[in-house]
Amino acid sequence: MSKIRIGITGYGNLGKGVELAVAQNEDMELKAIFTRRNPEDITPLNKDVKILSLNDASTMKDEIDVMIICGGSATDLPVMGPELAEMFNTIDSFDTHAKIPQYFANVDKAAKAGSNVSVISVGWDPGMFSVNRLYSESILSQGSSYTFWGKGVSQGHSDAIRRVEGVKTGIQYTVPVNEAIEKVRTGSEPELSTREKHTRECFVVAKEGADLKKIENDIKSMPNYFDEYETTVNFISEEEFYKNHTSMPHGGFVIRSGKTNNGKNNHIIEYSLKLDSNPEFTASVLICYARAAYKLSQKGEVGAKTVFDIAPALLSPKSDEELRAHLL
Amino acid sequence: MSKIRIGITGYGNLGKGVELAVAQNEDMELKAIFTRRNPEDITPLNKDVKILSLNDASTMKDEIDVMIICGGSATDLPVMGPELAEMFNTIDSFDTHAKIPQYFANVDKAAKAGSNVSVISVGWDPGMFSVNRLYSESILSQGSSYTFWGKGVSQGHSDAIRRVEGVKTGIQYTVPVNEAIEKVRTGSEPELSTREKHTRECFVVAKEGADLKKIENDIKSMPNYFDEYETTVNFISEEEFYKNHTSMPHGGFVIRSGKTNNGKNNHIIEYSLKLDSNPEFTASVLICYARAAYKLSQKGEVGAKTVFDIAPALLSPKSDEELRAHLL
Repeated sequence: MSKIRIGITGYGNLGKGVELAVAQNEDMELKAIFTRRNPEDITPLNKDVKILSLNDASTMKDEIDVMIICGGSATDLPVMGPELAEMFNTIDSFDTHAKIPQYFANVDKAAKAGSNVSVISVGWDPGMFSVNRLYSESILSQGSSYTFWGKGVSQGHSDAIRRVEGVKTGIQYTVPVNEAIEKVRTGSEPELSTREKHTRECFVVAKEGADLKKIENDIKSMPNYFDEYETTVNFISEEEFYKNHTSMPHGGFVIRSGKTNNGKNNHIIEYSLKLDSNPEFTASVLICYARAAYKLSQKGEVGAKTVFDIAPALLSPKSDEELRAHLL
Repeated sequence: MSKIRIGITGYGNLGKGVELAVAQNEDMELKAIFTRRNPEDITPLNKDVKILSLNDASTMKDEIDVMIICGGSATDLPVMGPELAEMFNTIDSFDTHAKIPQYFANVDKAAKAGSNVSVISVGWDPGMFSVNRLYSESILSQGSSYTFWGKGVSQGHSDAIRRVEGVKTGIQYTVPVNEAIEKVRTGSEPELSTREKHTRECFVVAKEGADLKKIENDIKSMPNYFDEYETTVNFISEEEFYKNHTSMPHGGFVIRSGKTNNGKNNHIIEYSLKLDSNPEFTASVLICYARAAYKLSQKGEVGAKTVFDIAPALLSPKSDEELRAHLL
């Protein structure tokens, strides 16, 4: 059987994760990595993989079955997403929640023009968390849904710390509040704000001679990012920072608490992730949906899709018969 | 918008659960309950619902969009499943794992002959647990999967207890072993037999003058059911039995532990259910798939399906636009 030929656009943490994930799946092969940088500056893990300028993507139209776009949601994907969807089946992890309807429409138009399948907003949130919100809300139609994030690194909050005067570098972990999770698990359906559900832990390397009290205060009072949260600021050495705070763990919980029989019986559905590497896990999800996009495209489907539109069997390399016999 | 018209075949615990679940979902209405008993012996919660003999099912072909078959897997479904699939879109919870391929083939043939959609083996295991095994195994292609059941009532083991000499009545709870779950959560991917993962707790009401030591021994040494498990037998009064042991709680855990980056990083995906009422929760899953079967049938699809073939969006009463805007 011929392998699914994968292309990667963008070779940051997520792109590298996709390269690793493709190598772990025997029904796929990585054909090329596309970059806006100078291709010669990129050294892939597998030296046989072609590195090409993104401008030359169209020359590879017939050699790639699915392009996985590893770009940011703020400025990369709104442009790249529709452009590439006209040339290839695509997968992306667009995660600006408020702009999903517009982005979906733009990608849908381009994918249909190119007769391709494009699955947008893939990963774990949006992605697997969304799927679990949908399943659990559909099953327990009367109830409350909760999403907790962490413990994990928030890139946006870490960037905000690094902009504070006197900070050399730093990182921020979003931490779910255990008591809040336990309260949800009792089935009492509490009303909880994002703030009541999470605390923020900062690890900061200060510049020499910096005013630590002022840094702590500047962080804790930062509007939108920290002022409404219980925030702790820990000062650490640069050595400790590079030793203990450069991996990218993440995770979280989606919990649905619902009732049946006119409120008499309570049910809890809980889905959780505990991830050593956020980008590597996200990449592992992306390539499953690449497999699904390939299968749908082979069946003649076109247009934009989300994780909601993809039947679970499409994600697996196994046949329907195997799945029914062994996993059902 | 017209409602999805539901029929129920079989009015035991599961059928009653479906009646309750339909009442909780505004896009559905219950049209009729079919029984092999004397219809006059059945009193539905909603007195307006027709009660008909199963022999007259064909007379309702045009008044029911989806028939939910609440029969047992041993003898009911192998006959009813194909028969009803030729007349109606159907949903069932066939759960004899080893016989799923044959049952699927029989129902598929009948559903195609009748131009209907039939989703088999729906519920939580098989059902939501299967879906989670599939998602998590597809994402973490290198790893190990674990299913733990309980704490919950096993009907088969409870029946076995009741057949023991000197037992008036009794119930058996399957209990997952916490230490085993914790070991799995560390990511160490232990090899665990079903026995190492579960213990069996029995609550027994003995007949007057019965030999309690002998009952305990007869239960604990029963081949297949108890002899390979750590089993505890508690003798209780009939009063306590009816007070504390007549509800039908259940639940369990599906955990996937997998690695990325050549084994460097570990990831845990965990799905769990904690259910006050097994039949009411199962029924809530069945009606979601009834909604999906209805939508697929409207689109002209035919044949047997499983939960693996159903895209999550089909389970929801919400439109694709709503789902993308609010749940993604």
